[in-house]
Amino acid sequence: MGKGRLEAFSDGVLAIIITIMVLEMKAPHSADLNALRPLLPLFLSYLLSFVYIGIYWNNHHHLLHSLQQVSGGILWANLHLLFWLSLFPFVTAWIGENHFAAAPTAVYGLVQLFAAIAYWILQRAIIARQGTDSLLAAAIGKDFKGKLSPALYVIAIAATSIAPWIAWAIYVAVALIWLIPDRRIERALAERSKPDQ
Amino acid sequence: MGKGRLEAFSDGVLAIIITIMVLEMKAPHSADLNALRPLLPLFLSYLLSFVYIGIYWNNHHHLLHSLQQVSGGILWANLHLLFWLSLFPFVTAWIGENHFAAAPTAVYGLVQLFAAIAYWILQRAIIARQGTDSLLAAAIGKDFKGKLSPALYVIAIAATSIAPWIAWAIYVAVALIWLIPDRRIERALAERSKPDQ
Amino acid sequence: MGKGRLEAFSDGVLAIIITIMVLEMKAPHSADLNALRPLLPLFLSYLLSFVYIGIYWNNHHHLLHSLQQVSGGILWANLHLLFWLSLFPFVTAWIGENHFAAAPTAVYGLVQLFAAIAYWILQRAIIARQGTDSLLAAAIGKDFKGKLSPALYVIAIAATSIAPWIAWAIYVAVALIWLIPDRRIERALAERSKPDQ
Amino acid sequence: MGKGRLEAFSDGVLAIIITIMVLEMKAPHSADLNALRPLLPLFLSYLLSFVYIGIYWNNHHHLLHSLQQVSGGILWANLHLLFWLSLFPFVTAWIGENHFAAAPTAVYGLVQLFAAIAYWILQRAIIARQGTDSLLAAAIGKDFKGKLSPALYVIAIAATSIAPWIAWAIYVAVALIWLIPDRRIERALAERSKPDQ
Repeated sequence: MGKGRLEAFSDGVLAIIITIMVLEMKAPHSADLNALRPLLPLFLSYLLSFVYIGIYWNNHHHLLHSLQQVSGGILWANLHLLFWLSLFPFVTAWIGENHFAAAPTAVYGLVQLFAAIAYWILQRAIIARQGTDSLLAAAIGKDFKGKLSPALYVIAIAATSIAPWIAWAIYVAVALIWLIPDRRIERALAERSKPDQ
Repeated sequence: MGKGRLEAFSDGVLAIIITIMVLEMKAPHSADLNALRPLLPLFLSYLLSFVYIGIYWNNHHHLLHSLQQVSGGILWANLHLLFWLSLFPFVTAWIGENHFAAAPTAVYGLVQLFAAIAYWILQRAIIARQGTDSLLAAAIGKDFKGKLSPALYVIAIAATSIAPWIAWAIYVAVALIWLIPDRRIERALAERSKPDQ
Repeated sequence: MGKGRLEAFSDGVLAIIITIMVLEMKAPHSADLNALRPLLPLFLSYLLSFVYIGIYWNNHHHLLHSLQQVSGGILWANLHLLFWLSLFPFVTAWIGENHFAAAPTAVYGLVQLFAAIAYWILQRAIIARQGTDSLLAAAIGKDFKGKLSPALYVIAIAATSIAPWIAWAIYVAVALIWLIPDRRIERALAERSKPDQ
Repeated sequence: MGKGRLEAFSDGVLAIIITIMVLEMKAPHSADLNALRPLLPLFLSYLLSFVYIGIYWNNHHHLLHSLQQVSGGILWANLHLLFWLSLFPFVTAWIGENHFAAAPTAVYGLVQLFAAIAYWILQRAIIARQGTDSLLAAAIGKDFKGKLSPALYVIAIAATSIAPWIAWAIYVAVALIWLIPDRRIERALAERSKPDQ
């Protein structure tokens, strides 16, 4: 079974998720520029979620690149990931409406956490099919980012009880970690983890 | 005529159906965690419908895999299936808003029943084109699940007059029947139906 | 320039149009079966529009099948068709909310008329590129349906001033004309138009 | 890494953007033809935005045509463009609701400006990858339209403080500049910029 339709379906779902989030930004009835001000939190949460879905699409693209045969387990691990990502428009809207309040901020982190776990499961399912000596297994061998992100989400969720802005700083930081091109970080990490070579 | 566009169009429609269901979950105005509680029934019905659309996509994927030539009949049998599946967001929202009440539960089963019949018609149309000695005809020869599901939907619809939860138990059970990998079940059924070999 | 993206983009737009129409059917707040009754006109108009978009997708599929090179003119003729089709969810919702009243019925016919004209322009643009002795030009040479439909839409629009149901009978009839497989009708028409051969 | 998924994802997002804009046109409750009159500004802004997204899709199609290898920079430059285009439904709805008032008209121009800049960045990223002696670099070498458009958007934004209709005349003019087939304009410009050859 080929991976073509798996990619097409995932692309479709991710394209819809990334686009319908903007539907939550309702056009204000007033023609005044100030009428946009209450929408700013929603705009910022939309921007962050857009970047996150972009990162997931980007990584998903790489993850499936080396895949050749799709198993039932991979199909469902992929749908599981799409399920958690499909909750992004909901949590993004909730955050935007409540101006980065504590509870929506924590739930945002929770959905992020589950999406990260789902991504990890999908990664495991693909490696399980390809063998641990595959290119993918080698490429993500160290998987520093993949392990750091869930830990940071847990810290962020806990931090919402102190101050939501700490959690937001963490969410933005995680996005930046993924946005910075891999090569330099991976080289740095490679040197750090193999100091005697 | 190739099957590429039939797959692409079906993938698009299924991706939209599975994603717009979540639009029915409106972000609560309150920033309180308790504000999520009234959304729980909608979340659960969304989860079940997500799994069902996932199962349909998965099976649709397999069904079209062996297909090479698309006829007008297959195109319309496919659109007929997509029509019933397109009603999932509506019935899912109705269930969620009425906390699994009897009437929405029965209508959910009815839409499921029509979708199952539409899937069976599509299957027949494809086998009719490929011949009864084709791979697909052999693969679904026994088609135990395909025959069991509509019967269970009818029982579930009838059961809503007694208690909606019986219907829900059946809907979840049907989803689990399809989720469990085929091989073991089919082997078991094959042995049961051929006791003297 | 290939036609792959033209097909993919058109499939995407048509898949979204056909699916978001159902979003206009809002889940009733009541859990009563009778609460579905006011939605019946919307359901019927959704069903008709679903069939029409299905017919357009089907014909679009055939139209582009013989195409190999895409020109700027074809791209814009295609977008022009998609524009009129994108108004289907709006007119479908308007009809459904007003239970097949005269004005929405006439506007529905108008959008149908413009979509039919746009389809005809796209057909001309493709034939212009391929030459009048191409397969497509031969296949649609007589183009009985393509000429009959706009005429029927005009009659239907005029008929709404007498009684909307006449227009609906015509819309359903046009859909049926397109749904009935071509071969028999075309053979019959071919014989009628060439009585002395 | 191939460009297939980049195209598929972009097509999906653009198809959704172009289609969900029409969701902002809510079907009026009245069955009267006059009930459509208040929707006319929204219809006109929808039409203009439809044409703009069509132009972007068209140009995007050409831009990626010559591309063979996708880099991380190109992926993100593409997502950046899609982000600004995803705001079109919002600004289109705001304009339509406020009948082409000054502030929404200026914000529409701002989103257009950012989209144009994002398109320019994507173009740069692709040329950077292919080399300045590539086909694309040659094709857009003069890039008269690409430089003129942002300048016109800035003028339009400033003009909203005098009268919004000036800005609208400019937006329509920019769309027409892009709609007119390239060949004649480019030939004219080529002759004007090389008078001594």
